[in-house]
Amino acid sequence: MHGYTQNKDDYAKRLRRIEGQVRGLARMIDNDEYCIDVLTQVSATTKALQAVALGLLDEHLQHCVAEAVADGGGQADEKIREASDAIARLVRS
Amino acid sequence: MHGYTQNKDDYAKRLRRIEGQVRGLARMIDNDEYCIDVLTQVSATTKALQAVALGLLDEHLQHCVAEAVADGGGQADEKIREASDAIARLVRS
Amino acid sequence: MHGYTQNKDDYAKRLRRIEGQVRGLARMIDNDEYCIDVLTQVSATTKALQAVALGLLDEHLQHCVAEAVADGGGQADEKIREASDAIARLVRS
Amino acid sequence: MHGYTQNKDDYAKRLRRIEGQVRGLARMIDNDEYCIDVLTQVSATTKALQAVALGLLDEHLQHCVAEAVADGGGQADEKIREASDAIARLVRS
Repeated sequence: MHGYTQNKDDYAKRLRRIEGQVRGLARMIDNDEYCIDVLTQVSATTKALQAVALGLLDEHLQHCVAEAVADGGGQADEKIREASDAIARLVRS
Repeated sequence: MHGYTQNKDDYAKRLRRIEGQVRGLARMIDNDEYCIDVLTQVSATTKALQAVALGLLDEHLQHCVAEAVADGGGQADEKIREASDAIARLVRS
Repeated sequence: MHGYTQNKDDYAKRLRRIEGQVRGLARMIDNDEYCIDVLTQVSATTKALQAVALGLLDEHLQHCVAEAVADGGGQADEKIREASDAIARLVRS
Repeated sequence: MHGYTQNKDDYAKRLRRIEGQVRGLARMIDNDEYCIDVLTQVSATTKALQAVALGLLDEHLQHCVAEAVADGGGQADEKIREASDAIARLVRS
């Protein structure tokens, strides 16, 4: 069980759509479409991926972090450090 | 003919790899893998997409923009405005 | 008392340095320095600001969020939602 | 003479405003304001800096790059490479 488990179907659907967007990018390049049009679609795909990341992160905070804190078993610090590292990677990607 | 035309095969290969990364993300979620591990892979996939965008943009400047300027036919301003708009979308995505 | 309170002096010092970087940018432009050199300094300043944001966010999670969860007083959800919104603004800025 | 020269006053004004925003951040921290409110202002300041960068880059393309290409003196490739490197730093900051 993880933060996102109850929304697995939603994430599966969003990732399938993103996979389709990436395939669409390959098709645009294969069809020699205009660079700027390809770039617009790359930005849209990146935004969709970032939205998935923000969703996963929110659920990580709501479930994994909150449970580790409530648990009081000493895992909270590590969970929060992991979350902060993931946020830093996201901001810089 | 566009900026990226001579590197089409390279872009096709990179996009196929990114498509595989997105499929890998869906698999990780289907297997209930740890949120933070999924997030690490989302960041890697986003970085790979951004690298494709930076490559396309560089070739747009080298070819489409440079040709429009050299051409002197008055298209340069529009090409540069399009490039700047694409850069802004990229920075904000 | 907030997450960052115990590190106030450190943040004050970092922000003074960033203020100096912004003043340096104004001076570079006043001296007609090369655009690309100005851009390199803008990127360095942006990175320094993002690092401040990541630090504040980490301390928000460690203190404000963790305390709200441990408290059990029902404020945890709101704190986490605020944190997720702040992360989203950061990723998109 | 650089791309931005004709808009120097505008950039000077924007950077003075950003300097004021950074000073405002220091004041918020000195006054122990709520972390999330500080983060909102950090995001606004980052966005303002990114907007300066996008403006400088657009003028670099419009002037420095376009002139180097029109000049035909062989400097165009270097200018474009510099611009692409600056874009990459911007996207990753």
